[in-house]
Amino acid sequence: MSSSEVECGPSFPELIRRKRDGGQLSKQEIGAFMRGITSGSIQEGQIGAMLMAIWQKGMVAEETVALTQEMMHSGEVLQWPKAWDGLVVDKHSTGGVGDKISLSLAPALAACGVKVPMISGRGLAHTGGTLDKLESIPGFTVTQPVEKIRQILEDVGCCIVGQTETLVPADRVMYALRDATSTVDSLPLITGSILSKKGAEGLNALVLDVKFGKAALYKDLDSARGLAQSMVTVGNGMGIRTGAVLSRMDAPIGRMVGNTLEVCEALECLKGQGPDDLEELVKSLGGYLLWMSGRTASLEQGQEALAKVLHNGAALQKFEAMLQAQGVSADIARSLCSSQCDYFLHLKPAEHKTELTAQSDGTVVDIDGMVLAQVLHALGAGRTKAGEPINHSVGAELLVILGQKVKKGEPWLRIHYDSPAPNAKQHSDLQAALLVGKADSYLASPRVAEFILPPKM
Amino acid sequence: MSSSEVECGPSFPELIRRKRDGGQLSKQEIGAFMRGITSGSIQEGQIGAMLMAIWQKGMVAEETVALTQEMMHSGEVLQWPKAWDGLVVDKHSTGGVGDKISLSLAPALAACGVKVPMISGRGLAHTGGTLDKLESIPGFTVTQPVEKIRQILEDVGCCIVGQTETLVPADRVMYALRDATSTVDSLPLITGSILSKKGAEGLNALVLDVKFGKAALYKDLDSARGLAQSMVTVGNGMGIRTGAVLSRMDAPIGRMVGNTLEVCEALECLKGQGPDDLEELVKSLGGYLLWMSGRTASLEQGQEALAKVLHNGAALQKFEAMLQAQGVSADIARSLCSSQCDYFLHLKPAEHKTELTAQSDGTVVDIDGMVLAQVLHALGAGRTKAGEPINHSVGAELLVILGQKVKKGEPWLRIHYDSPAPNAKQHSDLQAALLVGKADSYLASPRVAEFILPPKM
Repeated sequence: MSSSEVECGPSFPELIRRKRDGGQLSKQEIGAFMRGITSGSIQEGQIGAMLMAIWQKGMVAEETVALTQEMMHSGEVLQWPKAWDGLVVDKHSTGGVGDKISLSLAPALAACGVKVPMISGRGLAHTGGTLDKLESIPGFTVTQPVEKIRQILEDVGCCIVGQTETLVPADRVMYALRDATSTVDSLPLITGSILSKKGAEGLNALVLDVKFGKAALYKDLDSARGLAQSMVTVGNGMGIRTGAVLSRMDAPIGRMVGNTLEVCEALECLKGQGPDDLEELVKSLGGYLLWMSGRTASLEQGQEALAKVLHNGAALQKFEAMLQAQGVSADIARSLCSSQCDYFLHLKPAEHKTELTAQSDGTVVDIDGMVLAQVLHALGAGRTKAGEPINHSVGAELLVILGQKVKKGEPWLRIHYDSPAPNAKQHSDLQAALLVGKADSYLASPRVAEFILPPKM
Repeated sequence: MSSSEVECGPSFPELIRRKRDGGQLSKQEIGAFMRGITSGSIQEGQIGAMLMAIWQKGMVAEETVALTQEMMHSGEVLQWPKAWDGLVVDKHSTGGVGDKISLSLAPALAACGVKVPMISGRGLAHTGGTLDKLESIPGFTVTQPVEKIRQILEDVGCCIVGQTETLVPADRVMYALRDATSTVDSLPLITGSILSKKGAEGLNALVLDVKFGKAALYKDLDSARGLAQSMVTVGNGMGIRTGAVLSRMDAPIGRMVGNTLEVCEALECLKGQGPDDLEELVKSLGGYLLWMSGRTASLEQGQEALAKVLHNGAALQKFEAMLQAQGVSADIARSLCSSQCDYFLHLKPAEHKTELTAQSDGTVVDIDGMVLAQVLHALGAGRTKAGEPINHSVGAELLVILGQKVKKGEPWLRIHYDSPAPNAKQHSDLQAALLVGKADSYLASPRVAEFILPPKM
């Protein structure tokens, strides 16, 4: 196809018609649509109709690869020094409750010698956002120019920053419209949105944490596996070594939920004192990245490398350096990363705390992370619309873990709140989130259920 | 459902999601969506997604009735004097080539004693528009305030006017977007668009001329019948006595195609000298309306009443009065309606004419109206985008009729053009539009193939 044919190709209504009828769009046609989005030459109504047509008819793998690449190339694509070839890695999660993995994982990976240009998002609906968590720390600045990002990666090895205006502009338009048009849960659109942003980071390897369960977008393993396989296929099709981990997301990860509280728990993990499930996830996801990027010969060796830097202080050092590089004062960064820190010397606590007690004797069989997240959201920990302010101090501490025996009247949850206070309905919802049963009705499961490997691995 | 539930009902994304999944929307929900369109509180992208969801999943009859009624009530609905109860009628056509039926039908119906507040459109793509045709006549004014429309109906009995800003504003938004989003050919959306506009005319009876064939939107009888039945069901569901006629649309109607030329032929029909197929259609559609509105006891009597006013000058008188009421000078109106008028004393002819000749001996078996329309469109008779100017004088006269014997070298088509002149490609396309064959390969068919009756008739 000559370039003039590309430029004078089918009109936008013709492209919409083709997808409407279940046909396939070429890379050139998808590219023209993306240029229409970024230039504003395509009407918003046409984007809405195309999103719905894609939702209805799907896309074959080649189309999804093209969609992702064209979205990625709608803006700047980060370039790294030749010396980092093969070293640039990142993780993406589909979102969970109490998911502070990125905060511990990025510095741990940097401590293992790879580069992590992590571009994260903010919380929306029931899931928290990594940027919101980091902004609990006084001085932490998520907006960094590309040159500064490069410098931090050179000096420290990792950064956690917000989306810049120059990266993937087509996704910003499409993402906002997908929400308004009920076309969020489309495999090609999810894949395109996630992987175009990761592709724009100039990655060599990527691991996807695809969660399933009560507190996840996908409620069951099969549908999570569908997304994971689509993304693994497309990611590798784009030239990024991509693998996925399917992980359980019913009870919250660790014991802490809420922005400030999760920073504390991520720091504990970096000090080798984190909850078992959080450390398991950091090791699995990080170890997989080290293996995929060829830093270790096996997944197990990768996991061992992660365990080492979490327990020898190397990951914690990287976190301290990253905090300073991103605007936190040296004193606060050092204090937060010291062994016996009272975190609330530096982080703002909520004004009030209240505890809930178990209503019966037995074994903690389940804790519904979704219910917990929804109540905390209503208390100000989350936002309903992009741009809304949130209260970083609102959160909850689990005082019990799964499988633990509890007695009636023992506290199991501590809520941190300002205003509003939890009301009676929220109290009873939270009580119902704790499932206490017989000891033999609890079966311990690791967080990680399955690894999805890239082709030829 | 209480009114507060209606007002605080599902959000727009929730309504889109329901239709996306093939669910049914309530009248209240469709009403909320239409109010969102007219107030601008719904994003254009959401309208585009909803249109595509409706295209994909369709609507049940109750939903289509609700859609049509809510579209109709998005603006003003015309009200008529009590004395006209049962008398207010109109026709709608899905669009054809050489279709000047409205110009003859409206005054003929007025001559039969009914009221015809005909709101027409302009030509787009290959089909002409009634308003464009009438604007060939110096002074004819299609824009008339509602009070003037009422007065003309009182005095004359018929008018042919353009859409006003106050009628069916939701349709204007949706119609423009359907074109841009390739969601035009959706049964509920077509039905809603047509019948909401007719409903806003405050009609008692409506006949639909649903065309099928090479030069029609629907190529075959079955798909035309599908639209006709949907519209008949919905029209009657809205309380308008609605019937449909399925009519053949392969060769052009009559001998004249093009705005000015069609005015001449409509005048000939009003003088009782029109081509047979045009008179057949006027009688069938008008007779059906007289029967449905109870003015005659049968369809046949209705057709006879129409034939009478076409041949006794009564319909012609009404047309002359309508021209004057809509801004044409009394002299010109009288002259156009006189028995031996040279129309081109008043109407602007094209500067050039050229004739095409038959390439072989035989019988005229078919003339492809679509090819003819497309060439005339390219010569300036039609528009590609709403608002474009057109050349009223461009057109074509058929010098032969179906079933007629021709000899090689005999002229069969006269093209009226200004600039551009028809090129070689257009010449050969037009030549290919004439199908000459053996006498026994032509079977004469009436234009009207089928009547679709309202329920209980």
